[in-house]
Amino acid sequence: MIHLESDYNNGAHEAVLRHLMETNAERTQSYGDDRFSEQARMMIREACEAPEAQIWFLAGGTQTNATIIDCVLQPYEGVLCAETAHINVHEAGAVEFTGHKVIALPAKEGKLAVEDLRACLKAYFADDTAEHMVRPGMVYITFPTELGTLYTADELRALHEVCRQYGLLLYVDGARLAYGLAASRDVTLPLLAQLADIFYIGGTKCGALCGEAVVFPNGNAPSHMLSRIKRHGALLAKSRVVGVQFEALFTKVDGEPLYMTIGRQAVALAMRLRSLFVDTLGYKPFIDSPTNQQFYIIPNTDLDRLRQHIGFEVWCPVDAEHTACRFVTSWATSDDETDTLFNLYAKDNLIKE
Amino acid sequence: MIHLESDYNNGAHEAVLRHLMETNAERTQSYGDDRFSEQARMMIREACEAPEAQIWFLAGGTQTNATIIDCVLQPYEGVLCAETAHINVHEAGAVEFTGHKVIALPAKEGKLAVEDLRACLKAYFADDTAEHMVRPGMVYITFPTELGTLYTADELRALHEVCRQYGLLLYVDGARLAYGLAASRDVTLPLLAQLADIFYIGGTKCGALCGEAVVFPNGNAPSHMLSRIKRHGALLAKSRVVGVQFEALFTKVDGEPLYMTIGRQAVALAMRLRSLFVDTLGYKPFIDSPTNQQFYIIPNTDLDRLRQHIGFEVWCPVDAEHTACRFVTSWATSDDETDTLFNLYAKDNLIKE
Amino acid sequence: MIHLESDYNNGAHEAVLRHLMETNAERTQSYGDDRFSEQARMMIREACEAPEAQIWFLAGGTQTNATIIDCVLQPYEGVLCAETAHINVHEAGAVEFTGHKVIALPAKEGKLAVEDLRACLKAYFADDTAEHMVRPGMVYITFPTELGTLYTADELRALHEVCRQYGLLLYVDGARLAYGLAASRDVTLPLLAQLADIFYIGGTKCGALCGEAVVFPNGNAPSHMLSRIKRHGALLAKSRVVGVQFEALFTKVDGEPLYMTIGRQAVALAMRLRSLFVDTLGYKPFIDSPTNQQFYIIPNTDLDRLRQHIGFEVWCPVDAEHTACRFVTSWATSDDETDTLFNLYAKDNLIKE
Amino acid sequence: MIHLESDYNNGAHEAVLRHLMETNAERTQSYGDDRFSEQARMMIREACEAPEAQIWFLAGGTQTNATIIDCVLQPYEGVLCAETAHINVHEAGAVEFTGHKVIALPAKEGKLAVEDLRACLKAYFADDTAEHMVRPGMVYITFPTELGTLYTADELRALHEVCRQYGLLLYVDGARLAYGLAASRDVTLPLLAQLADIFYIGGTKCGALCGEAVVFPNGNAPSHMLSRIKRHGALLAKSRVVGVQFEALFTKVDGEPLYMTIGRQAVALAMRLRSLFVDTLGYKPFIDSPTNQQFYIIPNTDLDRLRQHIGFEVWCPVDAEHTACRFVTSWATSDDETDTLFNLYAKDNLIKE
Repeated sequence: MIHLESDYNNGAHEAVLRHLMETNAERTQSYGDDRFSEQARMMIREACEAPEAQIWFLAGGTQTNATIIDCVLQPYEGVLCAETAHINVHEAGAVEFTGHKVIALPAKEGKLAVEDLRACLKAYFADDTAEHMVRPGMVYITFPTELGTLYTADELRALHEVCRQYGLLLYVDGARLAYGLAASRDVTLPLLAQLADIFYIGGTKCGALCGEAVVFPNGNAPSHMLSRIKRHGALLAKSRVVGVQFEALFTKVDGEPLYMTIGRQAVALAMRLRSLFVDTLGYKPFIDSPTNQQFYIIPNTDLDRLRQHIGFEVWCPVDAEHTACRFVTSWATSDDETDTLFNLYAKDNLIKE
Repeated sequence: MIHLESDYNNGAHEAVLRHLMETNAERTQSYGDDRFSEQARMMIREACEAPEAQIWFLAGGTQTNATIIDCVLQPYEGVLCAETAHINVHEAGAVEFTGHKVIALPAKEGKLAVEDLRACLKAYFADDTAEHMVRPGMVYITFPTELGTLYTADELRALHEVCRQYGLLLYVDGARLAYGLAASRDVTLPLLAQLADIFYIGGTKCGALCGEAVVFPNGNAPSHMLSRIKRHGALLAKSRVVGVQFEALFTKVDGEPLYMTIGRQAVALAMRLRSLFVDTLGYKPFIDSPTNQQFYIIPNTDLDRLRQHIGFEVWCPVDAEHTACRFVTSWATSDDETDTLFNLYAKDNLIKE
Repeated sequence: MIHLESDYNNGAHEAVLRHLMETNAERTQSYGDDRFSEQARMMIREACEAPEAQIWFLAGGTQTNATIIDCVLQPYEGVLCAETAHINVHEAGAVEFTGHKVIALPAKEGKLAVEDLRACLKAYFADDTAEHMVRPGMVYITFPTELGTLYTADELRALHEVCRQYGLLLYVDGARLAYGLAASRDVTLPLLAQLADIFYIGGTKCGALCGEAVVFPNGNAPSHMLSRIKRHGALLAKSRVVGVQFEALFTKVDGEPLYMTIGRQAVALAMRLRSLFVDTLGYKPFIDSPTNQQFYIIPNTDLDRLRQHIGFEVWCPVDAEHTACRFVTSWATSDDETDTLFNLYAKDNLIKE
Repeated sequence: MIHLESDYNNGAHEAVLRHLMETNAERTQSYGDDRFSEQARMMIREACEAPEAQIWFLAGGTQTNATIIDCVLQPYEGVLCAETAHINVHEAGAVEFTGHKVIALPAKEGKLAVEDLRACLKAYFADDTAEHMVRPGMVYITFPTELGTLYTADELRALHEVCRQYGLLLYVDGARLAYGLAASRDVTLPLLAQLADIFYIGGTKCGALCGEAVVFPNGNAPSHMLSRIKRHGALLAKSRVVGVQFEALFTKVDGEPLYMTIGRQAVALAMRLRSLFVDTLGYKPFIDSPTNQQFYIIPNTDLDRLRQHIGFEVWCPVDAEHTACRFVTSWATSDDETDTLFNLYAKDNLIKE
């Protein structure tokens, strides 16, 4: 059985766990003011080439989105995003809970098109009744998106430009950032730090037990962040628990931070799966994802047999005979597992048994 | 150097870390629907003798208080507590952030007196303008309190009775519950489960890396708890991380759950400290605490020398020459450390060097 | 100059003002507990044929929407509406301010189609991840809509049925209800009271200085409404000010409540304008509205000359040469004013001068 | 029967109603952008000697407090006030609904003592854990207080100084400002405009049907106030309704704005009552109030007979035989009414019949 249901069906990368053990006995200050967290911050600043970056460690993705969006928006501002965005669909209204409107724009393969953004902003600022409407204060994008797709560097630059022009913040949800960086041809951490006003480096789905690192690359965080974070219930007493994990994730192994390696390996396995599903089995991609989330259109008649060997998630019906399904690799997916899958296929067991 | 600054200046109990390692490779469902969490829930139900109990695992104390209080109160209701209560003082307004008033009543050594509660409720319900006031919907207490003190079983029963009489919920913040149960002569988990409508079993300060277990002992949680928790940003994708830790904490060692052992040992060390501070050094207690938080009145002239050997927290000034200081033991305080302290004293090094 | 910018560019209907004067000297209880408000409630119950109806008087439309939606939804629920709905566009995020998501569905001439509603609900309740999404708890519609259009009785019945099927509340924003009832062939106050779970009878745009009457036709209001309303800052100390106005609006004149007369006269004038604009001047309707808001496509070259004689609102550009404009009649539009307009046209002054 | 239950048991001052009638036919812009509101703003600026003042018209007191406090505080800030303050007791948690903590300090005859304020701020800013606590961002006082008492000019100056020193805003709730200004020996509107960062001039209790005028005397309002106010549901479409009323209230009659005359007359009647209650009937004041709210300690045996002739409010029990009662005059209390009261007494009917 190979488990491709999600990238959070596991524990932590062994190097992360090991570092938790190594550091366990040491007594430190709490609330993020410890040497592990400080060391992790320095490593992240270096990896981002952003020496002025301010960094906070929070526990999870929805918490991070809701907390940070609320911390940086003015009360009367809302956040623009693609209609498929996580904050618009799958966060149980956590952003609205903080009092801000999520303003959904059309999504193209999970992405927000710069033309749609520009048109929306142009219309808003030209509207005589704008003061009666929620003012756009931020653009939220995910990298990679909920559908595994990626913005190119040029697309990010264009979004950045429009945000500058209209005075909006650009925020990048990097829940799966490791996989996005590994698959992108031109987007790097330093580029992200240049173009985004705020982004977070996802830990939970990229090797950690829990935890996300929020980066304000230009030292541009609002004042009193500790109070703001605590008010949202998002301040960990032992914040070091996340700091220690990010220290492990950004420690270099063979010249690159572990975080990058984790991303690279999972994407390689995803591409191997792709060749199996597309080239060998002849399934069509539901969406053309270069990252660790793969979506294929599966004949309904194959679903039960696939389920005997693979854990995956039904995404949505495509037509009466086909279903789009999601297969997710992660740092925890092993070569052995994919080997097994290939062997199963070779023996005609997988589909045609 | 012995570190008595807080009970969250450390990592996790070794048994907890070990269990995280043992279970690391297993793939599970997310969001709390995994076998570790389920096992931990069964253990907690057994320890509480509350077979109907519903249990959720959250990440931290302030998050738990704000989330749960908001989940169970009606929108127009507030929460009554002692003026020294954590939710009233040290949660950066997290409860008010959810829209509810914290109604502070006088505190007696950190405790809410049943007479003060009764008087407040009697006055509220007799007031012609009550509908213009925030309706009391819950009584919040901590066990142990922020000052280390404990309610007796009779005091809890009296609070329970008043809550019943006026239709309020009784909620117990058990951030340091292990230490409270160890020090109490008559309060047990099953009694707590009988008297409280909701309580949480603190993990962060009692042996875990992070995590608190919220217990609705009578299966009395409101509907849609997953949505409610997620809306507060408090749902962990890998909720199992907390589940695994509570499984370790409630696994029996020598006939009792590790959680109880942890509490007992830390309280024993606290009592040993007490004999050092009071009997040998002649300091007066600032408050008479039977639990792991100890408060003494220290002559200001002793402070610097104490600081060379002990990490502790200044609590508040007492008079021009004395300061109240807090010394906290935990599962992480070792016999070796306290031995060192005693030896230091014996060699006249600690104070009179 | 004829003022057709809006239906809130004026004071109050003279009968309303007169009743404020007649009742001015009387001393009453405050907060809605006065004989004028009670009398107004009885008149509204009678007009709605809803003897069990509970009625509250609030000051304005956005306030009413945000307050009532928040009062009746569960915290984790959101409100479904057409994307053009007032709560989605022109309330500055007042609903989100109360913590609830506004879930926008496609709009057809300002209306929510029952098929779109049904599809959305079917998809939500079939979704495995529904608990991570905002639960639909209410359908919000306006009668008439922001574009002046009306639901037929059958359309309301269909929406009512879908709401029943899925356990949602149906809420009708009646900011311009007088004009809607006057123009509809089959929707009456008693029908509305049968089909809606909650609705409000708009005063501000229909003859009052300020004020809206919220109706829970089946006595189905949640408990502690006074506290809930006050908590939203929506409780008027002299609530009687609105009660007195609704007493005037529902006093029968020539056998029908003034409220109905007001609606009828304004719609008649709107139809007269329509014949002028469409039949005589040859403008095309931008939307086919039977109520007091009329929308026409005006050649840009006519705009300035129109502005010399008519106050109106530019709605949106249609193409490079045409603009959609809104012309609104109200109880305050006089026959004299429309006569003047016709005469202007007759003398070729209006457009072709 | 003389009605002294409250100062909101009536309609509006006849000059206010008359002005509503005079201006009724005129068509204006909505949302406060009309010539009546603009004229009222100019009159208020002049009366306050604050030519830069920004002024908004809202509908009621609780709405004004909650909206303005939320508009000017940072999210992590709370508001300090006397424990008897309206926002702490009688607003159903409206301030907490906006997410801010109300931090209650001891009250002395309804007033906040500058020493208590200074002690609280000194302690907060000296506290190592301050960032975990709600930061004081504003001092809220009422003038007159809920108990009818007044701050002297020197007391206001002292509060102002402490606020400056610690960077807090000083906000004055002037729900009954007319009566306070009339009774004070040294506090004037210009002084208030110098010392307060924000205050509101109460209309509802001082002659208007509804409405309060919020003043930012130094043009110091935050940006986007219209959006902020609308988001709170506090923007009236026909905001002119309040503007027209304040135009009437600040129109000069015999050289002084009507608002001042209203206050003066009601206070004179209150003093006449005081002589009746204290000098003639021998009741003791419960509190020494110089304004329109009078509180006396009444023998319980007198209560029923008093109730035959006077409408008043029971405030609180004093001892087994006595009750504190509140008697409130207003612009609506007539000389005739108090004459009647005196005559009743003269004929021994009032108490000893």
